[in-house]
Amino acid sequence: MSTRQAQQAVNLATGATPRQLGIGMRFSIHPHCDNFVEVILEALDDAERAGLTDGMTFETDEVSTYVGAVVAPAEQRLMTYLAAVIDAASRRSDGGHVVAHVLLSRGCPGEVTCDLSMTGLPCPEPVQIPATGVRAVAQWSLYPLLDGGSDAGAHMEHIEAAIAAALARGTVNGTAHYATNLRGDVADVLATVADAWAQAGSAVPHVVCHLTLSVGSPSPARVR
Amino acid sequence: MSTRQAQQAVNLATGATPRQLGIGMRFSIHPHCDNFVEVILEALDDAERAGLTDGMTFETDEVSTYVGAVVAPAEQRLMTYLAAVIDAASRRSDGGHVVAHVLLSRGCPGEVTCDLSMTGLPCPEPVQIPATGVRAVAQWSLYPLLDGGSDAGAHMEHIEAAIAAALARGTVNGTAHYATNLRGDVADVLATVADAWAQAGSAVPHVVCHLTLSVGSPSPARVR
Repeated sequence: MSTRQAQQAVNLATGATPRQLGIGMRFSIHPHCDNFVEVILEALDDAERAGLTDGMTFETDEVSTYVGAVVAPAEQRLMTYLAAVIDAASRRSDGGHVVAHVLLSRGCPGEVTCDLSMTGLPCPEPVQIPATGVRAVAQWSLYPLLDGGSDAGAHMEHIEAAIAAALARGTVNGTAHYATNLRGDVADVLATVADAWAQAGSAVPHVVCHLTLSVGSPSPARVR
Repeated sequence: MSTRQAQQAVNLATGATPRQLGIGMRFSIHPHCDNFVEVILEALDDAERAGLTDGMTFETDEVSTYVGAVVAPAEQRLMTYLAAVIDAASRRSDGGHVVAHVLLSRGCPGEVTCDLSMTGLPCPEPVQIPATGVRAVAQWSLYPLLDGGSDAGAHMEHIEAAIAAALARGTVNGTAHYATNLRGDVADVLATVADAWAQAGSAVPHVVCHLTLSVGSPSPARVR
């Protein structure tokens, strides 16, 4: 951490809020159908009407929607909301092909600053998301963003620990170049990713995950 | 770098191939229309017929397509191909809404190993991609994956340098939480991202970018 960053380090003692920790996500949802606008708006409205937007802030732009967690439990709120949106989009498109792309981030409360200290990081409880009944396949990557001078080990150690935890849960469907394949109920896939992200975040302040989650895909695997 | 990694360090002296450097991408393309399968397959075929798949290997699975660069110039081959696929998908869907999600990675030649040394990293020439005439908006994130014990500085330094280079190019359209907004011809957006990725890769072995690129979107920005 630089001197500037050290000076600005946020106090992460008990009581730091999700907002102070910079816990949030960006997501986009892609129904592969002519009435995609309707499907997206209805899915977002469904989740809002279900009361799942409490404790979070939202900003939608041309590319994706930012969801910032304001109050705890942050991971639980984010994933419950996201599972509901994906579930609703799948239903609203009559089980058609819907892809969600998700970026989970913690540790960069500002837009391009990263001023958290390495100590006192929280380790939240595992998330509990009701099963959706919607099966998903997904590709997931986790990025622990260490600084060169830190003492938080090698970045691959944290990635390997995350994959080991996912394997133990049973949602891993093999590795791919640059990503781990996941498979299961949308709720189980999201819980796998969120718990690994929070776990890595207990040792490394700035941790990002990317997830591409697909439901209703007609694609077979193809290698050429 | 751990002792194990040091022992396994790949020799990056002149002559290391893109395959040895682990340079490649995963991408998925999402036409928001009922005939999305046809659009995707036609777009991939268009790029293949144009001879743009030379020097790369392809593996398509249920979620995305992996493209590995085998011979130089790696970044140039990858981005020329990707620009052509996005352009073709836009044309094949009559200018409809198409989103591409792209993961660029370098420095992890194995699936879950990361054994490159920090010295002798290449710094390739900027890519040159013909303009497509297709305008895109995009969100881009760059992740320099440092190890705690390394001497490659703080991860935010590399991110800030990448954003500065993009600003100088004129494709930046403001920052967002967790991402930088880009705007321009598909070719300019891809060149911005690829050049920043290669530049960061001249100092840090393992560097990943994620890009969500949208063409033909009907969405206005919405903040609530």
